[in-house]
Amino acid sequence: MSLPVNTYFTSRATVRKFDHTRQLSAEMLTTLLAAASHAPNTGNMQTYCAIVSATPEEVAALALAHFSQPAASGAQALVTFCADLNRFNRWCRLNNAEPGLDNLQGFLWAAMDATIFAQQFVTVAEQAGLGTCYLGTTTYNAAQIAETLDLPVGVVPVISVAVGWPAEMPQQSTERLPLEAVAHVGKYRNPSDGEIREMYAEEEALPANREFVAANGKENLAQVFAQIRYPKEANEHFSRVYREFIKSKGIEI
Amino acid sequence: MSLPVNTYFTSRATVRKFDHTRQLSAEMLTTLLAAASHAPNTGNMQTYCAIVSATPEEVAALALAHFSQPAASGAQALVTFCADLNRFNRWCRLNNAEPGLDNLQGFLWAAMDATIFAQQFVTVAEQAGLGTCYLGTTTYNAAQIAETLDLPVGVVPVISVAVGWPAEMPQQSTERLPLEAVAHVGKYRNPSDGEIREMYAEEEALPANREFVAANGKENLAQVFAQIRYPKEANEHFSRVYREFIKSKGIEI
Repeated sequence: MSLPVNTYFTSRATVRKFDHTRQLSAEMLTTLLAAASHAPNTGNMQTYCAIVSATPEEVAALALAHFSQPAASGAQALVTFCADLNRFNRWCRLNNAEPGLDNLQGFLWAAMDATIFAQQFVTVAEQAGLGTCYLGTTTYNAAQIAETLDLPVGVVPVISVAVGWPAEMPQQSTERLPLEAVAHVGKYRNPSDGEIREMYAEEEALPANREFVAANGKENLAQVFAQIRYPKEANEHFSRVYREFIKSKGIEI
Repeated sequence: MSLPVNTYFTSRATVRKFDHTRQLSAEMLTTLLAAASHAPNTGNMQTYCAIVSATPEEVAALALAHFSQPAASGAQALVTFCADLNRFNRWCRLNNAEPGLDNLQGFLWAAMDATIFAQQFVTVAEQAGLGTCYLGTTTYNAAQIAETLDLPVGVVPVISVAVGWPAEMPQQSTERLPLEAVAHVGKYRNPSDGEIREMYAEEEALPANREFVAANGKENLAQVFAQIRYPKEANEHFSRVYREFIKSKGIEI
């Protein structure tokens, strides 16, 4: 026996080019955010917020903080999801209560709840016919994003979504690792070296990935990931920058 | 003009009691996880995994790490979502590449992608008729969870979901703050003190919350949150414990 799964879930794909001839207003997006806010969150504290940038000027200003990557500068709107302790902290202090979320645990609750909110927004938006693309650059330039959006103490951007009407039909859903790579039953089953090689074989064989390896002069796809796309030194640099930014917003993780 | 929103999103609610007379197998759940794995993730690295506990013995053993709260010990299955660098790190090293995700940035990518995976699983499961409840206790007892599930170096539990056939019809969807509390347009608009009081007025007036305040001998709901449910000392304690656990798994955040 199996359970019914809407084909949307298995056929969805990221969209990076948008059709600006179709209308997409801030109001339309806040209505989708209202629906997404019914997603679960820790203790119903709702320590998150979303900021909608939907005018060409707002998108252009914010896209600078995302290295002007085409998915950002070409978006019809950007939605920045933040861990938001500001409202909760001020509510507590107005009520003679000292809040205690300005630490790793409090930040992780807020950041994960902001992420759940973001993912529910993505699902609601895609099921309404829109295309979306997460921007992984949010943590890199958090300070610039905060300045652009007037974020006060207690508010930290964690993840952003570019959104708009699709200008291209997404191809078949992106390749994913075989199920046994990401799902375990009962206990974690640590694969053998051979099994790990097999899990990645299909991804490594994709023409686009083979070209990517050749163009970068690397031996294989893993080297592209570890040395070009996500090198250790860059990750350590952005870890320091992001931690300092979070501290500047009153949270010590 | 507004966009179509499936009524599921605005009417959903958390389910904490499950009907054990209806079958729910590990295989049924891994099929839902396969669909959820099409949710977006950072660079398609898929640095996450899910472990399904679906036998009564597995649920009972894992529920201990969740303080045996009824939603956990009474679940038909528990699904533990982890940041998982193990598979990616080993793939890199098998390919003469040194991975660099063992830091705050790498952990946040993995934890947020695990959270997106978890939320997509919740949506897929709920749309298939199942009920779900997130367990916020995952970070409290991560070491005990890791021991129960045989988690190797590189794998850190971040969020868990109790799942099963609903034994109760969820009431109307949980109260949420007014939209202006969580959605901003253009810039972050910092509310006045009076506006913050208004945002929480409806939640404070709920009979269940008024009883909660009285039963705990507090003056108001904010004190219940800050002093009883999420006190600063406990959050700081669990921040230290979780950071140490993450370090024991080879990641320094």
